[in-house]
Amino acid sequence: MNTMIAIGFSVFVALLAFVFAGWLYLWVNKQESSNVKISKIAEMIRSGANTFLRKEYTILAKFALVISILIFIFLPSPIWKGSIGDNFIIAFAYLFGTVFSALAGKIGIYVATIANKKTAEAALKGIKPSFLSGFRGGAVMGMAVVGSSLLGVSLVFLITNNPTMILGFSFGASSLALFAKAGGGIFTKTADISADLVGKIELGIAEDDPRNPAVIADNVGDNVGDVAGMGADLFDSHVASLAAALVIGFSIDQLTGSHNTVLVFAYAAIGLLSSIIGVGFAKMGKNSSPTRALNSSTYITTLLFTVLTAIATWLFTFEWRIYFAAVTGLLVGVIVGIATDYFTDDSKTPVRKVSKASESGPALTIISGVSYGFLSVLPAMVGIAISAFAAYQITAPLGIATGTQIEYALFGISMAAVGMLSIVGMIISNDAYGPIVDNARGLAEMGDLGEEVIRITDTLDSAGNTVKAVTKGFAIGAAGLTVISLLGAFITEVNSAILERNLAIPLIVGFDIMNPAVFFGLLVGASVPAVFSAMLMLGVTKNAERMVSEIHRQFREIPGLKEGKEGVFPESDKCIDIATTGALKELIPAGLFTIIITIVVGLVGGVYAIGGYLTGNIVSGLLLALFMSNSGGLWDNSKKYIESGNHGGKGSEAHRAAVIGDTVGDPFKDTAGPSINTQITVVSLIASLLSIIFLTFSIF
Amino acid sequence: MNTMIAIGFSVFVALLAFVFAGWLYLWVNKQESSNVKISKIAEMIRSGANTFLRKEYTILAKFALVISILIFIFLPSPIWKGSIGDNFIIAFAYLFGTVFSALAGKIGIYVATIANKKTAEAALKGIKPSFLSGFRGGAVMGMAVVGSSLLGVSLVFLITNNPTMILGFSFGASSLALFAKAGGGIFTKTADISADLVGKIELGIAEDDPRNPAVIADNVGDNVGDVAGMGADLFDSHVASLAAALVIGFSIDQLTGSHNTVLVFAYAAIGLLSSIIGVGFAKMGKNSSPTRALNSSTYITTLLFTVLTAIATWLFTFEWRIYFAAVTGLLVGVIVGIATDYFTDDSKTPVRKVSKASESGPALTIISGVSYGFLSVLPAMVGIAISAFAAYQITAPLGIATGTQIEYALFGISMAAVGMLSIVGMIISNDAYGPIVDNARGLAEMGDLGEEVIRITDTLDSAGNTVKAVTKGFAIGAAGLTVISLLGAFITEVNSAILERNLAIPLIVGFDIMNPAVFFGLLVGASVPAVFSAMLMLGVTKNAERMVSEIHRQFREIPGLKEGKEGVFPESDKCIDIATTGALKELIPAGLFTIIITIVVGLVGGVYAIGGYLTGNIVSGLLLALFMSNSGGLWDNSKKYIESGNHGGKGSEAHRAAVIGDTVGDPFKDTAGPSINTQITVVSLIASLLSIIFLTFSIF
Repeated sequence: MNTMIAIGFSVFVALLAFVFAGWLYLWVNKQESSNVKISKIAEMIRSGANTFLRKEYTILAKFALVISILIFIFLPSPIWKGSIGDNFIIAFAYLFGTVFSALAGKIGIYVATIANKKTAEAALKGIKPSFLSGFRGGAVMGMAVVGSSLLGVSLVFLITNNPTMILGFSFGASSLALFAKAGGGIFTKTADISADLVGKIELGIAEDDPRNPAVIADNVGDNVGDVAGMGADLFDSHVASLAAALVIGFSIDQLTGSHNTVLVFAYAAIGLLSSIIGVGFAKMGKNSSPTRALNSSTYITTLLFTVLTAIATWLFTFEWRIYFAAVTGLLVGVIVGIATDYFTDDSKTPVRKVSKASESGPALTIISGVSYGFLSVLPAMVGIAISAFAAYQITAPLGIATGTQIEYALFGISMAAVGMLSIVGMIISNDAYGPIVDNARGLAEMGDLGEEVIRITDTLDSAGNTVKAVTKGFAIGAAGLTVISLLGAFITEVNSAILERNLAIPLIVGFDIMNPAVFFGLLVGASVPAVFSAMLMLGVTKNAERMVSEIHRQFREIPGLKEGKEGVFPESDKCIDIATTGALKELIPAGLFTIIITIVVGLVGGVYAIGGYLTGNIVSGLLLALFMSNSGGLWDNSKKYIESGNHGGKGSEAHRAAVIGDTVGDPFKDTAGPSINTQITVVSLIASLLSIIFLTFSIF
Repeated sequence: MNTMIAIGFSVFVALLAFVFAGWLYLWVNKQESSNVKISKIAEMIRSGANTFLRKEYTILAKFALVISILIFIFLPSPIWKGSIGDNFIIAFAYLFGTVFSALAGKIGIYVATIANKKTAEAALKGIKPSFLSGFRGGAVMGMAVVGSSLLGVSLVFLITNNPTMILGFSFGASSLALFAKAGGGIFTKTADISADLVGKIELGIAEDDPRNPAVIADNVGDNVGDVAGMGADLFDSHVASLAAALVIGFSIDQLTGSHNTVLVFAYAAIGLLSSIIGVGFAKMGKNSSPTRALNSSTYITTLLFTVLTAIATWLFTFEWRIYFAAVTGLLVGVIVGIATDYFTDDSKTPVRKVSKASESGPALTIISGVSYGFLSVLPAMVGIAISAFAAYQITAPLGIATGTQIEYALFGISMAAVGMLSIVGMIISNDAYGPIVDNARGLAEMGDLGEEVIRITDTLDSAGNTVKAVTKGFAIGAAGLTVISLLGAFITEVNSAILERNLAIPLIVGFDIMNPAVFFGLLVGASVPAVFSAMLMLGVTKNAERMVSEIHRQFREIPGLKEGKEGVFPESDKCIDIATTGALKELIPAGLFTIIITIVVGLVGGVYAIGGYLTGNIVSGLLLALFMSNSGGLWDNSKKYIESGNHGGKGSEAHRAAVIGDTVGDPFKDTAGPSINTQITVVSLIASLLSIIFLTFSIF
């Protein structure tokens, strides 16, 4: 198989994904929705989400424009020193990346805010049609994201035949994702926490009580945080994994005349194809549960990928070693998923112990939750460590004949990341299902669809939460392997720059920890994810304080609101406004901090400091992301476990403590934790793109 | 100056420290104590602390015996392959280290449990004599710890002239410290949390109310956790910093005929001398505050060290570059201290914001406290990074003539650690002052010494808390630099083993992150401090649950206890028993986990994996230790800030939230956070000691 055929196949599968997404959209759209009250509320959610996206994208468009101008002037090397054409293409690729990412988010929100009301009303007919509405609505997002990623990467590579430009595309995707994930994360948790603080804790009213002015904002938040944000995050990881694999694979191809880039496209396309088939077959069987339906379509997709790539490897005589590296990656995805499941599943020890500890008050809820969160990092970190080690050992021998063992080893790790992310279309579909059914549950309650519908949507929602915890673990694992291979891409970029420009600098063969610049970078890099998370969470706290006062004001000043008088509505738009403005204000410093400190370290310490810096960033980023996502998921499920009647059930002391735990966990698992993924990727890409600048201009 | 003179000088200063400690003890002991009630309670605290120490040391003696037998069989190389004499000496050095560490802890507790009642009664005469009692009581511990450390290291070096044996001594100190710190930490927080949960939160009675069965246990905990535990911890850091510097310095001396070992002893002895003088001059001046008195004696000590070492350098023509490396280390200590102070001082933004957030309930207290804790890692990590970088660059040129730049650079880092830890005698004195005055406050309340005495001891206690936060930051910074130099010691040990045994293995020149074994170790090593902390904190939770039920039982079953009937006493010994048994039960798995996983990584991945593992351990250990210590300190001070009348003061919603924050912070700052220091040191020492085993027997 040659490169053109592989790219052609990728473009074909990407277009197929779009067609399939179109069909899914039409299917969802033709489902019944006749309830006026629900339509009205759904319209409020939709318009809130659109307002946020519009404001966010307006700011981000300016930001992207500034960055693209900077890229045009400075990258890959300053315009007065290199070729103007390269700079133009990379700036363009960057913009292309931001636009694709924004589009994927926009499509996801568009469909999700239709699917939510369809899902709610479908529940009147039973759980199966309701499940299908929610799942297919989410799958539109899944298909759109992976389709755009594969299409974008294929086109950029086809046009430029230069993987550095794909790094530009990838940086576009990441820089947007950084803000989309962080901004969405701040928005959604501001609303969620404020709604809970006043509603559940102060007034003791139900989760989606329509009197609460923050409830609509909370539902909007589910969409902008979990649909658009998570979509942007996984879009970014997927593009980055392809970019890293292409950079390294291309460099080996140049050196040895092999065809490794073919493999990257072939594997990615087969992954998307498997997801399309998996999504197509997903439905709830007889006596089945929604959790089982979601899981079994994930397993089908995984199996399909394993079998189809094996067939392709056999048919086109690809290297079996690369195949095993990719499969190792998928395996790690499964390990991380299972580990996450253990720490967040309410039938396992951690949730049970934390729920028990809640009987002695919120302090023990927090301490034990933090402890289990810390414990949960072990299996995932060891899993990622083993898979990187294994992929390295499996593929290194491929380079013996040509003296490119290290290059092949790094390519092996990048293919492990590609393997892990191959089924990402399915993962996103599962993930976007969550906020849709969560919204549907809210609509059912606010639209008075009755007990049975609420029960059905509750079941669907709880399945969404279980699956969400697992996919989040998967996303972190994927980001972990991806950034390790981006470290490989960084070395490749630096060395090609040295060779191309005949610089009088020895080639980089590695980063020695005992080199003081590397060690310096390591310590600084390790502190970045902590600071970044802190800034986001403080953003949430500040913003939530603003919104809580607004809710208090409304309950005080709007007559009849508290009593639930007929025809009296809260001013939900004010809450949406606070969440929007606050989120956009708070995310900028966190994003800029990350970008600037990377540039400073590179300019001060040079490429070796950056090597250490990236490593420190990866290590502490993985650690904190796993800790925060898992403890957050644990508290959420512990609260639900108590609410289902254990340890005194709703209203008990234990429940009050568990609600506090859940509130603490909210920004952990939905703001800071998952944003760290994107933060690491952005930093890795900046490092690769600025490698020539760091080589030429650093102080040490 | 030759080595013998330097060692002689060290032994002399160490003995001087003991004489001074004896004088301080006699001074404290002759202070008045006539109050019968106080004496009775103080006796209960004393006997509780002794019971704990006796039980702990009984278990640890068995543990140390087993380890020393294992060392005798296997280290530095298996007995059937090497010389039996070396194995015997190193096993003996190990035991010697454990005994010295235990002795220092025992002396500290002995004096602290006398000084507490003296301090309480001295407060009747005013704040100045009371301060002096507390401070001098603590200084006995400071002098004993640093005196034993310097004496022990000097003797072992004098007898064996082999720094590997000092690693054995250091491992003895650390392995005991690991359990003393962890065990003491679990004990003290079990009692503290249980007392608070039932006393403050459920019943709303005062902190040291004598009706509460856990109050005596809480006071015992202050002694076993903060006096004995912290003493063992800093003993361990001090010994380890000397061991690392001696290993590297000795190896340079062997290669080049220089006299670097002389410098290590000279600097350490001057540091202790400065501390003796600093302690001798400490007292509260006119219009002074206890905080100022503590800080100014620290500054005096720092200044003395800087000046005296400069004079010595000039007089004996030592290398000025080494001098500057050591001073850089001290400077970082100051940076870390100031940074810690900013994040925990109640006049600064973080404490203020967290206190304000508490008005919206405990969830925001926790979220904002965690966030500031995360932020607080940046200055300290960057400070440690810069100082290691600077020390490296300053001293590397010393090796140009002999081709030992890297060795000198590592020696520079180790001397930065020695510089930082030079004033540790003063630091421990300040630190042990804390629990003594805290105890005194409790005794004043339980012994009805009146409002004024309580007010005075409160002021003394609050100064203790401020200084404690700073010294804890200092201890973490010191551990950071020490373990970095232990990494250097590890390389030195591995290379001498290769050379001595003519092994067919290339010498280690560094640890390349792109080496898959190193990267594997890095990820696994990074997860260890998280898991270790989690195990300790879960130990506290479990143990606190047991104690809370016991307290409930006593209030239920002992007639008249709740009402505070005259002559009715709680069964305090039962609580002490639960804390003791539980602490000893919970600390073993955590300690064993750390030791075993290190050995497994070494046996599987070999010395390169261990290099990565140690690095990952240092990076994530520093991160988590700083985060936990600082957020814990912040919550503590935020609670005190609210109690002093802000945001509604005692009994308000904000206060209730702040108490929950403080309770969460307790195991963060007093159990897990500071134990991580010891955990990192132990792991580094095991790696060095087992280097030959890992070289010879590893799978990869």
